[in-house]
Amino acid sequence: MIDWTSRYATRASRMAASEIRELLKLLDKPDVISFAGGIPDPALFPMEAIRKAHRRALADPLSLQYSASEGHKPLREWIAGYMAGLGVSCAAEHVLITSGSQQALDFIGKLFVSPGDEVLVSRPTYLGALQAMSAYEAKFTALPRRGDNRATAGGGAKKALGYIMPDFQNPTGASLDLAERRDLLDAAAALDLPLIEDAAYEALRYEGEAMPALLALEAARVGNVDAARILYCGTFSKTVVPGLRLGWVVAPEPVIRRLVLIKQASDLHTSTLSQKVMHEIVTATIPERLSAIRNAYRARRDSMLRALEREMPKGVRWTRPEGGMFLWLTLPEQVDAALLLSRSLAEARVAFVPGRAFHWDGSGGNTLRLNFSLTDEARIAEGIGRLGVLLRRVSGVEG
Amino acid sequence: MIDWTSRYATRASRMAASEIRELLKLLDKPDVISFAGGIPDPALFPMEAIRKAHRRALADPLSLQYSASEGHKPLREWIAGYMAGLGVSCAAEHVLITSGSQQALDFIGKLFVSPGDEVLVSRPTYLGALQAMSAYEAKFTALPRRGDNRATAGGGAKKALGYIMPDFQNPTGASLDLAERRDLLDAAAALDLPLIEDAAYEALRYEGEAMPALLALEAARVGNVDAARILYCGTFSKTVVPGLRLGWVVAPEPVIRRLVLIKQASDLHTSTLSQKVMHEIVTATIPERLSAIRNAYRARRDSMLRALEREMPKGVRWTRPEGGMFLWLTLPEQVDAALLLSRSLAEARVAFVPGRAFHWDGSGGNTLRLNFSLTDEARIAEGIGRLGVLLRRVSGVEG
Repeated sequence: MIDWTSRYATRASRMAASEIRELLKLLDKPDVISFAGGIPDPALFPMEAIRKAHRRALADPLSLQYSASEGHKPLREWIAGYMAGLGVSCAAEHVLITSGSQQALDFIGKLFVSPGDEVLVSRPTYLGALQAMSAYEAKFTALPRRGDNRATAGGGAKKALGYIMPDFQNPTGASLDLAERRDLLDAAAALDLPLIEDAAYEALRYEGEAMPALLALEAARVGNVDAARILYCGTFSKTVVPGLRLGWVVAPEPVIRRLVLIKQASDLHTSTLSQKVMHEIVTATIPERLSAIRNAYRARRDSMLRALEREMPKGVRWTRPEGGMFLWLTLPEQVDAALLLSRSLAEARVAFVPGRAFHWDGSGGNTLRLNFSLTDEARIAEGIGRLGVLLRRVSGVEG
Repeated sequence: MIDWTSRYATRASRMAASEIRELLKLLDKPDVISFAGGIPDPALFPMEAIRKAHRRALADPLSLQYSASEGHKPLREWIAGYMAGLGVSCAAEHVLITSGSQQALDFIGKLFVSPGDEVLVSRPTYLGALQAMSAYEAKFTALPRRGDNRATAGGGAKKALGYIMPDFQNPTGASLDLAERRDLLDAAAALDLPLIEDAAYEALRYEGEAMPALLALEAARVGNVDAARILYCGTFSKTVVPGLRLGWVVAPEPVIRRLVLIKQASDLHTSTLSQKVMHEIVTATIPERLSAIRNAYRARRDSMLRALEREMPKGVRWTRPEGGMFLWLTLPEQVDAALLLSRSLAEARVAFVPGRAFHWDGSGGNTLRLNFSLTDEARIAEGIGRLGVLLRRVSGVEG
C-alpha cells in the first residue's frame, strides 16, 4: 500500500479543508436558515436569456470545439468595453478569460509566488485567496495601512503580491474610500508591489457613490494599463450566474501573455459554449439584470440590518455595507464563533461562517460572516431573531 | 514601469509557448491542409443530443448555481460504471471531475511534484503533460524499458511520478502490448512510483483486441483501486466534445480527497451545467456515438496509411496505429522537420507538428506528427501526396 501522504509536494500538504465547505452541506436541510455561503439567489438568474443564448450558440458545432486559451475574442472585447465604463482604458489583449475569478487568483499565484514569498492581505480577507496562494506556499502578512512605517521597511521574505477586495469585501462587506485607495496605491508603489484587485462584488452597490477602481486610479497615475501594477480580477458569478464558471483578469499585456501560457498548461481553455453564451447574455441584458439584482439584495440587506438593530444584545457590533452579499458581526470578546456555530445549528437552526477562517493568523475568533443574498426578507428576520435569542443566552447579556 | 519578468516565480519563467499553438493559427487558411492539432471532427459531434440535454438541464436554475468541487454525483457514478467496463472496480468516491484531462495533469503535478523532482515519461510524450509538469519545475527522464537496469538503481532526484499514455499515444499512435504493460507495472513497483495513466484515446480503437487498462491490471495485482499506484485520467473530449472541457481522474480515495481541495482552491468546480449535460448525453448515446466515431476515423487512418504507402520516398518510416488520432513519421536523419514545416507551408500548403516539441531533451528533430481525425479522406490523400512531392525534393531521394 502506498503511503500517499509522504509523497505530497509541500505546497499540497499545506492545503486544508475549509470550514465553508462543511457548512455548505447544511444548506440542504430545510429547517436550517443559512447565512453561510456566498451564493447568489437562483431566482434572479436570467433563465430565459440563458436558454435563448444556448439555443443560438448550439446551432454551431464549433461552440463545442477546442478554442483559444486566452478566451473568446468577442467576450474579451465586451469586457474591455465594460472596463472602460469603470474608467479603465484597455483592449482585448489585456484580458484573459478564466474559469471564475478563483482561477485568476490561482494563475496569478502560479505566476508570481515562490515558496516562502510574502503575500500581503487585509485581515480578515477572502478565504479563497488564502487557499489559492497557500497552494504556492505563500506566507501571509498584513497590507500596510495609513501611517504604517513597515510599508517601506523592506527586509524579510520577498513580497510577491498584495491582494485586496476594495468593494464590499468578502467577508466584511467593507469598502475602501477614496483616500484609502490612494494610500494603498502609494504603499504598493513604495514596496514596488504588484497588487491584485479582486472586484468580485464591484457591480453590487446598493447605495452611495461608486468608487473608482484601483486599476483606474493607478492607470491615470502611471499613464496606462500596461504600466500599472494592478492585476484586476472580475467575474460574472455575482451578476449573471456562477455555475458557468466565468471570470477574467485585466493586466499589462506581458503578464496576460504569461497567464495565457499558464491557462494552456492548466486546462487549455474555458468552455467555448459558456463563453459564447455569456457574451450574448451580457450584450443583451446586463443593465436590467444589475438593477433587478441590486433591488433584491438591497431589500435583504436592509431587512438584515433592521433585524440586527432589533434583535442583537449589547456588545455585538456589525458592519453596514453599501453593497455586496455580506455583513460582519463582532461578538463580545469571550464568545467563540466556532463554538457558537455548533450551538446555533443545534438550538437555533441558523448557519453562518465563523470568522477565524478568514484570518491567516488564527485571530478573529469572536467574529462571524452573515450572507444576505440567498434568503428572503421574512426568513432573514426570523433567522436573525433566533440568533439574537441564542446570543443573549450565550453571552448572558440582556441587550 | 514594472519589470515583470524579474518577478515571475521560477516555475512560471520556465513555461514556453508551444509550437502547436502557433500552428493552430494556420487552420483558418482554407488552402492549407492541416494534419496539425489533435482535434476531433465537429461534424461528428452529437448536436441534437447536446441541444436536448441543454434544454432539459436549463429547466432548473440550480444547473447554473455553484456546485460541489468533486463534481456532479450522477456523472461520477456513471464514470465508475464506465470504469467497471474497463475492468476497474471503483465508486464515485474514487472519481474527481476535472475541466478536461489537462486539468487532471495539472492537479496531479500540483499534488506530487516539488521543484527538481523527476517525472518519468516516454520519449516522445504528450506535449501537454510536459507543459503541466514543467509548471511545477519537474525534470524529465525516461521511463524504464524492459531490461533497463536503471529502473531500480535509485539515487539522484526524487522520482515523483511516471506518466504514460498506453493506448494510441499522442504523438506516435503506438500502444503498449500486454507484456509491456506488465513490465511497466513491475518497474513502477520497483521504483515505488505513482504512475499517471493518460487514457485520452482509449475508446478510439479501430482494430485489434482491447488491452486492459494499467489500472485494471494493477488493481487485480494489489487487490483494489485504493491500494493501486495508478492515477487514471479520462476525458470526454475525444468521444463526445472537447469544448465543454470535461475529464476525470480515478485514484485512491485519499488522493481524490486531496485533489478535491486542489480543485476547490483552483477554480471551485467545473461548470455545473456542462456536467449535467454530459451525464445525460453519455447515459443516452455513448454506444452509437463510439461506433460512428470509430468508423469515420478508421476510414481516415486507412486513407492516410494508403497514401503514405503510395507517396512517401524511401527512408521515411511511419507507425500503423490501431486507434487514436495520430501517425508518427520518422524522416531520414538529415531532414529537420521544423525546417521542413516552413517549406511545407510555403510550397505544399500542408501543416503538421514537428516532433521535437514532444521530446523533453531536444531530440526527435527528424520526426513529425500527422493527425488524421479532422480531414476527410480525399484531402488526406491530396495532402500526403503534396507532402510526398516535397519530401522527394528535400531529401533528394526518388522513392
